[in-house]
Amino acid sequence: MLGVLGGMGPMATVDFMAKVVRNTPAACDQDHIPMVVCSASDIPDRNAALRGEGADPLPAMRDALRRLEAAGATCIAIPCNTAHMWHCALQYATPVLILHIVDAVTFELTARKGDCIGVLGTTSTIEGRLYQERLSYKGLSCRAPDAAGQEEVMRAIRLVKAGQLAEATEILQAQAEALVAAGCSQVVMACTEIPVALASVEGTLRTKLVDATEALARACVRACKTDAASEIAFAA
Amino acid sequence: MLGVLGGMGPMATVDFMAKVVRNTPAACDQDHIPMVVCSASDIPDRNAALRGEGADPLPAMRDALRRLEAAGATCIAIPCNTAHMWHCALQYATPVLILHIVDAVTFELTARKGDCIGVLGTTSTIEGRLYQERLSYKGLSCRAPDAAGQEEVMRAIRLVKAGQLAEATEILQAQAEALVAAGCSQVVMACTEIPVALASVEGTLRTKLVDATEALARACVRACKTDAASEIAFAA
Repeated sequence: MLGVLGGMGPMATVDFMAKVVRNTPAACDQDHIPMVVCSASDIPDRNAALRGEGADPLPAMRDALRRLEAAGATCIAIPCNTAHMWHCALQYATPVLILHIVDAVTFELTARKGDCIGVLGTTSTIEGRLYQERLSYKGLSCRAPDAAGQEEVMRAIRLVKAGQLAEATEILQAQAEALVAAGCSQVVMACTEIPVALASVEGTLRTKLVDATEALARACVRACKTDAASEIAFAA
Repeated sequence: MLGVLGGMGPMATVDFMAKVVRNTPAACDQDHIPMVVCSASDIPDRNAALRGEGADPLPAMRDALRRLEAAGATCIAIPCNTAHMWHCALQYATPVLILHIVDAVTFELTARKGDCIGVLGTTSTIEGRLYQERLSYKGLSCRAPDAAGQEEVMRAIRLVKAGQLAEATEILQAQAEALVAAGCSQVVMACTEIPVALASVEGTLRTKLVDATEALARACVRACKTDAASEIAFAA
């Protein structure tokens, strides 16, 4: 039973679940993966906490883990990149394997050693080097928008959480194009709100975008359909 | 904490969750309703069981209820109309209130005493008189497609479960229009796969369609935002 520690944000969790369903080969209900999802929307703001300006979200995330364990989860996914700043602390709190979103992305990257990968994510994700660290193990470097661009990305993420998609799409598309122009061979949408806003993007840019939510969904399908969760989680 | 007994089918559960999120007035994650969702896609086919041709789904549904209770659900919704044929049996199995989808629909109907309401649902829902019974308390009568039309509706529902939306949309739109032509003032999309297929319908028909999934989502928002679950559940 796949467990989902969700609610960060609630619509990103719905997007993730839809991607799990769409990535599962199925002709009827019973072919799909059983899931238990905790949409714990009351978890305190992760970015504020990392800036030292808000309540610690770890107790509420641990509470959600407890609920997933009680409901019988045997493998857990967290459709929120920023929350992965607490991945070690959360894995320490449960014997149930928690798949890592960056490993899921790394598994799907087609870039070659020496390539530069663009990362569109929250400021905490970028400053915390969530992607940089694990991608460097594969010989890949990372590039994020400059300071002004990064502020725009954060504004776009907040717009998605408030349901205002059109303006968010415009901002994020421009930032993704700037990263490609700066030489990035692929651009990771490394915040689960971003693919919601960039769903309509087509053309060359689309072929360079890597959807972290979709990558995590596919990792879950592989883990649950093969029971080889540990192998996949540590594949990177 | 809203509990969702889902997975019947998995995409209908995702559609329901999106409707809960969209119907919640919110500017940030923390304004949303915490949910725990069990997408128990392995529950045996409800229609086959009601035809006497398949395994009893009640034990698996009770198992999902146990998981929701263990995870801390304090009010439960089931985004599947056919599963409501077991509503009494499920409510008997848990002290946690289970909202009823037909009550949620009845709460939103604008029809007047004496009106005829069209019902597009599974054959079991129609033959089991799930809607007819509760709508008759409000002085409303019901009309379903004729035998050939009902078979088409079932085929369309199976197409949605297999991800083939285009043909399903055509079939369901024709059946909805036939019900309106036969004098129905409103037509209830009384199977959670149907609004997924009819999401693109516009014009006069759209104004006559009642989305049972959306009605249930709004009932959940009212229940969780006001803590008056019992009042709402029995409003009809």
